[in-house]
Amino acid sequence: MLKVPDHQVAGHEGRDGMLGPLIDDVGHFYKPLQDDDRGSNEVAFYKSFSSNTEIPDHVRRFFPIFYGTRLIEASDGSGLHPHLVLQDTVSSHLNPSIMDIKIGSRTWYPQASEDYIQKCLKKDRDSTSIALGFRISGLQVHGSQESETWKPDKKLVKKFTAKDVRLVLRKFVSSNTSVDTGMDPDCSFASTVYGGSAGILAQLLELKKWFEDQTIYHFYSCSVLMVYDKESVVKERNCAEVKLVDFAHVLEGKGVIDHNFLGGLCSLIKFITEILSCSDEYEEAKASLQDPNNNCNCTD
Amino acid sequence: MLKVPDHQVAGHEGRDGMLGPLIDDVGHFYKPLQDDDRGSNEVAFYKSFSSNTEIPDHVRRFFPIFYGTRLIEASDGSGLHPHLVLQDTVSSHLNPSIMDIKIGSRTWYPQASEDYIQKCLKKDRDSTSIALGFRISGLQVHGSQESETWKPDKKLVKKFTAKDVRLVLRKFVSSNTSVDTGMDPDCSFASTVYGGSAGILAQLLELKKWFEDQTIYHFYSCSVLMVYDKESVVKERNCAEVKLVDFAHVLEGKGVIDHNFLGGLCSLIKFITEILSCSDEYEEAKASLQDPNNNCNCTD
Repeated sequence: MLKVPDHQVAGHEGRDGMLGPLIDDVGHFYKPLQDDDRGSNEVAFYKSFSSNTEIPDHVRRFFPIFYGTRLIEASDGSGLHPHLVLQDTVSSHLNPSIMDIKIGSRTWYPQASEDYIQKCLKKDRDSTSIALGFRISGLQVHGSQESETWKPDKKLVKKFTAKDVRLVLRKFVSSNTSVDTGMDPDCSFASTVYGGSAGILAQLLELKKWFEDQTIYHFYSCSVLMVYDKESVVKERNCAEVKLVDFAHVLEGKGVIDHNFLGGLCSLIKFITEILSCSDEYEEAKASLQDPNNNCNCTD
Repeated sequence: MLKVPDHQVAGHEGRDGMLGPLIDDVGHFYKPLQDDDRGSNEVAFYKSFSSNTEIPDHVRRFFPIFYGTRLIEASDGSGLHPHLVLQDTVSSHLNPSIMDIKIGSRTWYPQASEDYIQKCLKKDRDSTSIALGFRISGLQVHGSQESETWKPDKKLVKKFTAKDVRLVLRKFVSSNTSVDTGMDPDCSFASTVYGGSAGILAQLLELKKWFEDQTIYHFYSCSVLMVYDKESVVKERNCAEVKLVDFAHVLEGKGVIDHNFLGGLCSLIKFITEILSCSDEYEEAKASLQDPNNNCNCTD
């Protein structure tokens, strides 16, 4: 039985008679192919990538596994529609906290139509993409209470400023995250989720290393998905995952690195590094019972 | 006595009654302040940078030394005009081969006027900036003969494609560079100029490390200048220098890395790394007198 995913934070949702992705109960994610070039482009990318022997395994793990395409009943009731069949990277988590971050200060490419370029350029200028090299597309964070989930509305996410992004990246790893945005995030999960040898920062640094060298693909409008389970983190077991998603606008690299993606990725890495050094100092300070005025002031 | 520099490859030249930079014979470079914001911005940057104690010395050496501003007779005969007094990084070389590379796929910034943004965007799209993350603004290369200098016309440089850039970066370190562009560059200076612990690649990697971390400045429309002396290279003495120049469009970083500059810099680094690995293989192949068909084919 296919159903609409519980934990979708960005993109079209398959609710209320709309066309959107579906999942089954054995770990597959069905993404409807878009009718225009985007659908065929994404299939072409997955086919190329999954058969490309130059992709090292430690990089391949950042991409959802591709199981081909399949005709299934679309979520909007319009009948059979071709879908990408992918690994469902989110539903294996019980209470996943998720963030979808579109990487790159530029989501357009010269080969696109002038209309598309102008539309993307406007979105890049109206969001944090130009300033930060990335923008948050959506997120949900689980608070300390079972029932407490912070999932800001799409309209709110679209208006995120650089300052909001800095705060949200901290709220994402805080135990006191709630709808009350006035509270100062404690970043108490930062060292487990962002830090450590298997944490999100380590994974992003591995991706960065690949992007400094690879000239096969250019990833426009592609997102980094960060996922972790509150339950595991509370037990200090790291289960944070980084995945790349959305490949409708992947182009051939033609021997040039994807400097647009790489720049944005490095900027995100810097934000996360700062949260870590901040929370480390905070933790150290807390542990040594120093004057609280000496603690790292994370609200700046 | 002030005179027009012999070795200028980009920017306005102070010849034929035009306003341009001047040099003296003790190592100073006089750059006329532009009347609009650009002049005051560049002075403000040099003042801020030269007094900023957070800039490590190994990074400071990539910037021309700033000696203040001075009123001197302008090269266009218009009388006294304020000039930046800078270290002359080029004239200490006898026969310098020089390349000026404007870094960043985007030369505009949101705070600029809409007219300026559209003008920059057009130039970025019409050049290799969007595709490669950088564009060559000018160059001169000394051939094996004293009299032989390849200094392509500005109009030609403006039309450089990605393929041209790849070739020109190889011609820049070749002993058989001549006006005959049909000749395959031998890259015989690559290991001395680009390679080695003090070569251009090592210097660019040091700059990269700083740009991954620094959030003080954003360098729009700023160039990397690569300079070396043919005579020193022939004697296998490395004297290759990297300098950053042109700071009329430097903005405050406001806690964010300069992902636009960093991305372009990483792309340039990849181009140079490839030339080095290519020429290494070529040299090795030549040394072992292998079948010439096994040599690295640098013309691809």
